Amino acid sequence: MNKHVISVDMGGTKIRTGVVDEYGGVKHKKSISTEANLGKESVIERLIELIQGIYNDVVLKSEIIGIGLAVPGPYDNKSGVFHNPPNLPGWDKFYFPGALEPFLKIPIKVINDANAAALGEYIYGVGKGYKHLVYLTLGTGVGSGIIIDGKLLMGSRGFAPELGHITIDKNGPHCNCGNAGCLEALASGTAISRIAQGNIKNNRESILREMCSGDFMQIDSRMVAEAATKGDSLALSIMKEAGRNLGVGLVNIIHSFDPEIIVFGGGLTDALNLMMPSIKSEIANRVMSNQKDKVKLVISQIEEDVALLGAASIFLGQHRK
Amino acid sequence: MNKHVISVDMGGTKIRTGVVDEYGGVKHKKSISTEANLGKESVIERLIELIQGIYNDVVLKSEIIGIGLAVPGPYDNKSGVFHNPPNLPGWDKFYFPGALEPFLKIPIKVINDANAAALGEYIYGVGKGYKHLVYLTLGTGVGSGIIIDGKLLMGSRGFAPELGHITIDKNGPHCNCGNAGCLEALASGTAISRIAQGNIKNNRESILREMCSGDFMQIDSRMVAEAATKGDSLALSIMKEAGRNLGVGLVNIIHSFDPEIIVFGGGLTDALNLMMPSIKSEIANRVMSNQKDKVKLVISQIEEDVALLGAASIFLGQHRK
Repeated sequence: MNKHVISVDMGGTKIRTGVVDEYGGVKHKKSISTEANLGKESVIERLIELIQGIYNDVVLKSEIIGIGLAVPGPYDNKSGVFHNPPNLPGWDKFYFPGALEPFLKIPIKVINDANAAALGEYIYGVGKGYKHLVYLTLGTGVGSGIIIDGKLLMGSRGFAPELGHITIDKNGPHCNCGNAGCLEALASGTAISRIAQGNIKNNRESILREMCSGDFMQIDSRMVAEAATKGDSLALSIMKEAGRNLGVGLVNIIHSFDPEIIVFGGGLTDALNLMMPSIKSEIANRVMSNQKDKVKLVISQIEEDVALLGAASIFLGQHRK
Repeated sequence: MNKHVISVDMGGTKIRTGVVDEYGGVKHKKSISTEANLGKESVIERLIELIQGIYNDVVLKSEIIGIGLAVPGPYDNKSGVFHNPPNLPGWDKFYFPGALEPFLKIPIKVINDANAAALGEYIYGVGKGYKHLVYLTLGTGVGSGIIIDGKLLMGSRGFAPELGHITIDKNGPHCNCGNAGCLEALASGTAISRIAQGNIKNNRESILREMCSGDFMQIDSRMVAEAATKGDSLALSIMKEAGRNLGVGLVNIIHSFDPEIIVFGGGLTDALNLMMPSIKSEIANRVMSNQKDKVKLVISQIEEDVALLGAASIFLGQHRK
């Protein structure tokens, strides 16, 4: 029998699903908008419909051994409930398997989406061949997952790791998590757009002013990256500063975990090449001599499907095929 | 047969040894000064003599199954050599087992001393009953060892973790490791004495001036802690600041590893009670809501023998008795 898993990657804006086989193939892909604003019940209802639709499309139904669900954290692995997820307001303490299993009659396992992505990269992505891997997703926030000696780091309650919320500047800007000077507050897409908006508001010279048609609140990290590519000096300096901040955080990660490879995913990866020189020079300036030039920095190649693949691996096993 | 291990805790100033049994008993304790300034060969010669002396004292020699050696890091676990250890200058690339085994004819295993201490706390100390433990040794520097789900975190080459060298203030003071604003540069004994010395030099009012008999270079963290206990306001503010810095670092550690317990050892532990209110309030201000009041902070009770116990566990097994 060929084993298959229905995988779900549930984000704050989009829900993506597909059927994953043991070799990392993804078929029957479908996606819907999350529309979290319509409430939990509506999301669950449409999610059940979506999964049932996929299940109906599968010819050999007996080959489906489970549903792997990647969800935004924090997700308490011990009790199986969300803990105030910032991207899904109102889902605190919600127990996902209990809401789905009665309708779907297939075993369900839930995993934090960044942890799922780390597993996906480790088993099917650029992490192949390594046993010590750190995955960072750079987008609106900074998510993370870590493989140590071939095993996913979960922590005592499944809350590890939150590398987006390690402080690199104790006097730095406030972060949404309640802390200050976190990596997420200094190197995420949100941080880049916040800094750019502040500069334009304060009348700094930049083509961003025209690009946002005068409405500086429209400036996002993608726009800043585009302006930087066009040679805009304000945009370039903001991207460089974010790169340096990311470099400081990466040194913390290298010193903490001694990984072989750090893999980057998320919406900011397009801009990462622009930031890479600043990232690398900051690492070179700060890393301990025993770690100099040891850790590979690589951008994900399976971005779109990575969380689906990782969520499937909860059923298919964490071993490489 | 009762298994025993000859354990060695090799520090920059002192070498301590003893015979450890399976239940955490330590007998035949002996210690000598390291006198690293006399050179590697002299240290090795005296170490061999010391171990041979202990071996001669043991009645049932067949019960000795190995020699566990805890050494200051960085120690490359893959190649089995030191990597520029700051506390043992001149020992770079030195291969310890090769120098000892021909003389001692007993199998030798080497481990980083902070990792040994983490194992010691986990198996025999206040870490009993927990599976996710972080050990921090606060002294001249800040050392660390981590147990994840009952297993020691080593990293890809045995260099993990270096939690003393995570940056909490990217614009902070230079650290001996080459980085800046590290926990070690802001919360270690060295940091405390450096800040106190600077203040006294700059004519700040304090009883430290009399305590050091006018020679401000004599001020160490112990003296600062003593002055703080006597109510000296400068000393108190320095200890509080170090406590807050430690709190920022502990939040980084909690967010990265989601541990159940953090154990403190090292020369600064006496001063830790003085710093604890600042540590705890900084954690409360910064930690993510899912981690609030979850992680226990405990001071080691087996301080003196902890590295000996941990080094022995490489042979005796990492399981609790």
